[in-house]
Amino acid sequence: MPYHCYFNGQLFPLDTPLFKTNDLGLLRGYGMFDYFRTYNGVPFRWNDYWQRFENSARQLRLSLPIGQEEAAAVLAELYRLSGEAEVAFRFVLTGGYSADSVSVVEPNLLIRTEPLPQDNPGARLKGMKVLPYEYVRDLPEVKTTNYVHMVLMADEMKQQRASDLLFHKDGEISELTRSNVFLFRGDVLITPNRNVLHGITRRVVMELAASHFEVEVRPVSLDEFLFADETFTTSTTKWVMPIVRVGEQAIGNGTPGKRTLLLQDLFEKVIKSSDH
Amino acid sequence: MPYHCYFNGQLFPLDTPLFKTNDLGLLRGYGMFDYFRTYNGVPFRWNDYWQRFENSARQLRLSLPIGQEEAAAVLAELYRLSGEAEVAFRFVLTGGYSADSVSVVEPNLLIRTEPLPQDNPGARLKGMKVLPYEYVRDLPEVKTTNYVHMVLMADEMKQQRASDLLFHKDGEISELTRSNVFLFRGDVLITPNRNVLHGITRRVVMELAASHFEVEVRPVSLDEFLFADETFTTSTTKWVMPIVRVGEQAIGNGTPGKRTLLLQDLFEKVIKSSDH
Repeated sequence: MPYHCYFNGQLFPLDTPLFKTNDLGLLRGYGMFDYFRTYNGVPFRWNDYWQRFENSARQLRLSLPIGQEEAAAVLAELYRLSGEAEVAFRFVLTGGYSADSVSVVEPNLLIRTEPLPQDNPGARLKGMKVLPYEYVRDLPEVKTTNYVHMVLMADEMKQQRASDLLFHKDGEISELTRSNVFLFRGDVLITPNRNVLHGITRRVVMELAASHFEVEVRPVSLDEFLFADETFTTSTTKWVMPIVRVGEQAIGNGTPGKRTLLLQDLFEKVIKSSDH
Repeated sequence: MPYHCYFNGQLFPLDTPLFKTNDLGLLRGYGMFDYFRTYNGVPFRWNDYWQRFENSARQLRLSLPIGQEEAAAVLAELYRLSGEAEVAFRFVLTGGYSADSVSVVEPNLLIRTEPLPQDNPGARLKGMKVLPYEYVRDLPEVKTTNYVHMVLMADEMKQQRASDLLFHKDGEISELTRSNVFLFRGDVLITPNRNVLHGITRRVVMELAASHFEVEVRPVSLDEFLFADETFTTSTTKWVMPIVRVGEQAIGNGTPGKRTLLLQDLFEKVIKSSDH
């Protein structure tokens, strides 16, 4: 298997047993991560992802054992070992091994190289269905490892032919399980400002949208989302993906909107260009 | 090191690296556990703990790879290997290894033998301080591995000489990070009925209290707790532990109450008897 991972200073084949059983990520869910990918063999928006990873670590009061330059060298070596044209990287930082299952002593840092999900351009033109789900993430601005509801609901989503959950709480939406959401009301692009992870793809899309649309970043109600003209989600792997259905309700006429498809096109030009 | 653990059918020394890096407990916080201990070398209330473990697994839709009898044989062997008079056992069940970081295929089952926290009878007579903390556990009836706030606040607790957090949300209390709470108003013993883990020690104490006090199981406001005559917490390791201070506020006169000490005494008689 060509994929490798980095664990506390050493490289290992990806399927090596590495974690001892008193890791606080495992026993106490005390862990955070980030996930990004290469385009043309180069990590996309590496500075942004690294800064977000640093920010998550700071909020969980975990010290990063390596700096950005050393991490970049690790990524280059993992990429080389993979032998692939493009890969994804997953950074995971946990509270480390703990004698009393509570106290942090020294975090464990894992960097995994992972195969990319198969690209599916047809799906991006067709759009996807999500299920409304009453929940708001705890510590939403920190990319913690807590994705219990996503895993718990995986079968239900399959049964309902839905691709994701739309989190809402007290009538206000926040995000999908792993991606941000946007809506269009006419030529106004709107995205929630709170209880969300600050996505890097979200940021790029907002930058691109600014030349074409008015952009509002503010609380968004579930009703406003359901009755929007167009809705879509953004993520590292989904890029700009139309949301055409929330549960049984179609958004707009139930097909991807033209403004969404414009942003999709603009985003795909960015990642395919060499100077991102 | 005499302590061992069981992992998916085999026994290993406790500090062996065992988990591969794509475990869903580690990557997605998709895991649950239980924790109990021996008295006189025998697991206390083993049936109750096993049933709770089974219930957590059911709620997370994870299948248990072994049944209760097989688990009991594992416990006996782990206990023998430890060479100790008394030990604690930690059961951990995760979503297992996942190719796509979402789908559960086969759970990983870990059973760790752990040394008991040092007993401190003086602390039980003195009581402890807790900090009020606005939070309610997600999926409170499932013993998931999500204890992020407990780990995050560990330093703050030390600085404030507090032993734990008292969770409250919208004016209603639920529990401490790892234990249940009770209060006395006169001779009426009251404990929250919702957003709590159903503790085994909680159940034993309610059984013992029934002969001496009226017992109410119902929603409890933070104010009612702060102005109670006596308060205490119950857990596998804390037994019946008086809470004498919540933040800067003393409960009652700031010392353990006589009714609490009676329950403490009754509970200690149970665990020291041979026929539990």
